[in-house]
Amino acid sequence: MSSSSAAPAERPSMREALVSAAFRLFLERGYEQTTVDDIVALAGVGRRSFFRYFPSKEDVVFPDHERCLADMTAFLAAGDEEHEPVRRVCDAARLVLRMYAENPTFSVQRYRLTRKVPGLRAYELSVVWRYERALAEYLRGRFAGRPEGTLQADVIAAAVVAAHNNALRSWLRSDGVGDAGAAVDRALGYVQREFGHAAEPAEPPVRVHPLPGGEGGRPDDVVVLVSRRDAPLWRVVQELEAALGRA
Amino acid sequence: MSSSSAAPAERPSMREALVSAAFRLFLERGYEQTTVDDIVALAGVGRRSFFRYFPSKEDVVFPDHERCLADMTAFLAAGDEEHEPVRRVCDAARLVLRMYAENPTFSVQRYRLTRKVPGLRAYELSVVWRYERALAEYLRGRFAGRPEGTLQADVIAAAVVAAHNNALRSWLRSDGVGDAGAAVDRALGYVQREFGHAAEPAEPPVRVHPLPGGEGGRPDDVVVLVSRRDAPLWRVVQELEAALGRA
Repeated sequence: MSSSSAAPAERPSMREALVSAAFRLFLERGYEQTTVDDIVALAGVGRRSFFRYFPSKEDVVFPDHERCLADMTAFLAAGDEEHEPVRRVCDAARLVLRMYAENPTFSVQRYRLTRKVPGLRAYELSVVWRYERALAEYLRGRFAGRPEGTLQADVIAAAVVAAHNNALRSWLRSDGVGDAGAAVDRALGYVQREFGHAAEPAEPPVRVHPLPGGEGGRPDDVVVLVSRRDAPLWRVVQELEAALGRA
Repeated sequence: MSSSSAAPAERPSMREALVSAAFRLFLERGYEQTTVDDIVALAGVGRRSFFRYFPSKEDVVFPDHERCLADMTAFLAAGDEEHEPVRRVCDAARLVLRMYAENPTFSVQRYRLTRKVPGLRAYELSVVWRYERALAEYLRGRFAGRPEGTLQADVIAAAVVAAHNNALRSWLRSDGVGDAGAAVDRALGYVQREFGHAAEPAEPPVRVHPLPGGEGGRPDDVVVLVSRRDAPLWRVVQELEAALGRA
């Protein structure tokens, strides 16, 4: 568990003691059967101390998401025009993975608990939604002025979150064994291949020569494309789509 | 409001009367300030009748999602191998749009209410999650056996939901004016263009000739691609990626 926190910094160990006591009780008795009073009694502190760090019992289950959301927002805000936008949101998603991978045992325990308690699943969905909105807002800014900018931003943000969570949950289901980072890289690589073209600049050197036909060509007509090796792939595809009559 | 329901069918009008009374009170007094007792008093029925149709006060806000989820699941189950999978999940998402578009006034009222009440937003997120899982489960089945099948299924399901909701929410924010169906078609078209290749069979006739170089080619080397006009675009792109050294 990380010691950093948005809560008062003078006594980080109390916060950690509360999380630790809470999880011990959740695992022994179950989440629903554990009260905040039980948690503070085991941690040896008062109720007010608990609520200084956590607004509710649910929040002690996800003690690091607020910090991680703040880190993600700061990371995205620190980006500039030189960062390819899809790559940037994939890198932002890796901050979430890092939080889980910092402490596999805790992450796996929490995953099992969350599967069992509907209230915690709902809480988790709202956290995931906030990550997704942070990514989407960043992309909306980068895609501003495009006709379909907000649509592309929302779709790509959702795809990044889904890919990240697909890999993260596989890792959690396998009890945190294996390289979570490599799995998430693989999953995000799929999204980058699908959408990485969405933000590259225009005007690459590509020429397509449909032979012989033009518009009404037959399916087995031949298309010849000549491209510089450094032409952006999306531009090559755009030319091809036009030539094949599928744009 | 549709009259169909998963609840007892003998008196559909009571269910509608409850929804109607609930929304009148939500709009007059606010959601939090309205109790189930207030709703049943206005509708002229007893508390037990309310709970026969709706498990909680939140459920009366979303009276048709259970039916729509059942319709979606049935629609997907009725598909066969001939349906292109990405198109099929896009068509399934259109069932949700149809439910909203059936009654624009009600949908817009609910949208405004949901923006204001955190508990309803959380409820809505859980409903959206269930739609997304229904789409993902269908795609996982269709993509079974592929190395990255579950990843692709999860990402495409999330993209479909995000595109649908982007268009739906624009329409709701504009007070239900304009053609919601056309907006959703446009949004889903983007997803189909990005992912429509994900389920096509392999082996199209495409050949790429990198000239002169091979692996270590310079950026301004020329690549020549020869393709039949009917070659699937994704296959052309795959060949290009390999030739350009970006696969």
